[in-house]
Amino acid sequence: MTRTDPDLAQDLRATADALADAASSAILPHFRMVGLTADNKKTDGFDPVTVADRAAEKAMRAVLAQRRPDDAILGEEFGVTEGRSGLTWVLDPIDGTRGFLAGTPTWGVLIAVSDAQGPILGVIDQPYTGERFTGGLGLAEWSGPMGRRALGVRGTTSLSDAILFTTFPEVGTPAEKAGFDRVSAAAMLTRYGMDCYAYALVAAGQVDLVIEAGLNAYDIQAPIAVIEAAGGIVTDWQGRPVHDGGQVLAAANRAIHAAALDLLNAGS
Amino acid sequence: MTRTDPDLAQDLRATADALADAASSAILPHFRMVGLTADNKKTDGFDPVTVADRAAEKAMRAVLAQRRPDDAILGEEFGVTEGRSGLTWVLDPIDGTRGFLAGTPTWGVLIAVSDAQGPILGVIDQPYTGERFTGGLGLAEWSGPMGRRALGVRGTTSLSDAILFTTFPEVGTPAEKAGFDRVSAAAMLTRYGMDCYAYALVAAGQVDLVIEAGLNAYDIQAPIAVIEAAGGIVTDWQGRPVHDGGQVLAAANRAIHAAALDLLNAGS
Repeated sequence: MTRTDPDLAQDLRATADALADAASSAILPHFRMVGLTADNKKTDGFDPVTVADRAAEKAMRAVLAQRRPDDAILGEEFGVTEGRSGLTWVLDPIDGTRGFLAGTPTWGVLIAVSDAQGPILGVIDQPYTGERFTGGLGLAEWSGPMGRRALGVRGTTSLSDAILFTTFPEVGTPAEKAGFDRVSAAAMLTRYGMDCYAYALVAAGQVDLVIEAGLNAYDIQAPIAVIEAAGGIVTDWQGRPVHDGGQVLAAANRAIHAAALDLLNAGS
Repeated sequence: MTRTDPDLAQDLRATADALADAASSAILPHFRMVGLTADNKKTDGFDPVTVADRAAEKAMRAVLAQRRPDDAILGEEFGVTEGRSGLTWVLDPIDGTRGFLAGTPTWGVLIAVSDAQGPILGVIDQPYTGERFTGGLGLAEWSGPMGRRALGVRGTTSLSDAILFTTFPEVGTPAEKAGFDRVSAAAMLTRYGMDCYAYALVAAGQVDLVIEAGLNAYDIQAPIAVIEAAGGIVTDWQGRPVHDGGQVLAAANRAIHAAALDLLNAGS
């Protein structure tokens, strides 16, 4: 493909929106239906989060079978479906299942489409709040309760002015935690527990850094596309491409990225 | 007053809604307007969060001056206004200013009305998501993107099934942190960074426990009213009334409250 083919770009954007709509319809009937009684234990390993997760990925796969049958699929729930177009849809129907389980609107539907070099279009969708963040193929915008706006990162250059988000202390090894702690100690403010919503806030110019570890490809490809379209940068903790997952450093700009990278690696 | 006077109850509920509406209108124009450029430093101590905080409390005080001029006011921003009705409105225009600053929809407007015994009506309002949680004077309900529903707590009785929320590690002394850590180690899931939204989720039957320290009266009176109306219990870490603030333990029911209280005090 050529990344600038306008018809293809339009079709991919429309397909991504259709996928997000399908996932939203499949998930919302289950949100906050979790845990309303005392007998909600996961005795059969098939809790309401899993039901919503699987229903959403099935709904998205049905959309792709109809609209983009030649594209490959990598889904969090149902794995790999081979394709022959050179494009792969990378789907995480509910990123942040712990947040979903707890009723917080910080989980999201992650949708990316990638070529051999990595993600070219990404969507972070929060069905409950009605927020959708889209980046790539010439688009960088979000919509929500306050209308439609352009995405754009912050210009913060000093860690002492930076707002940092993370899923720590819930993730990571002790060594990874130590790296995170060095950046956190230098930052103006550290916030926890936001799941994929944190990446959307980098792209929307609200926060400066997200640091995580142990991610999968389907956790990070949509955030990469959205943040890069907004002017930010997403790498691993060595500054390399991270679309296959692992340790992630997402930053509003190159200056704050470099400053965080130095501290993440200061112990080694 | 008598707590069952239906005309008074109706007037207090309508006033609480009018206060929440006034605060929402004052705050939302400032939300996510924070930090869009690099030069947002709080050089004069008068950042956009403070502007929104003060504008919202002024708007709420104007509503009270018109509707309930004989009631006292305790506000987070402008302190105490004496009254002569025996009722006090307890107002926190933006609870969770760090969340507000970071763009997360976890902050809220807290409104309570108290008599000599403590809060009799409370509202936790999240203007951005359009969620309002109201409890007291015969009402226990919430409204939001999914419509209007009754509030009601979970029946979880074992800590091993419990979902715990907290503002730790951001708050508390080392001794308080140790108490929190004991409960967290026993809980099924601990989530961070939710500000006052966590109390709303207890009342809505989504989570079981919130543990915090160092709160003020205006941080906790609305959550007390909302959670108690939903069937839950809110005390300090010794099981005593906590409407004046301090260490807070909010629980879905007496069983889970007792289990958490034991562990909070296991080190002393």
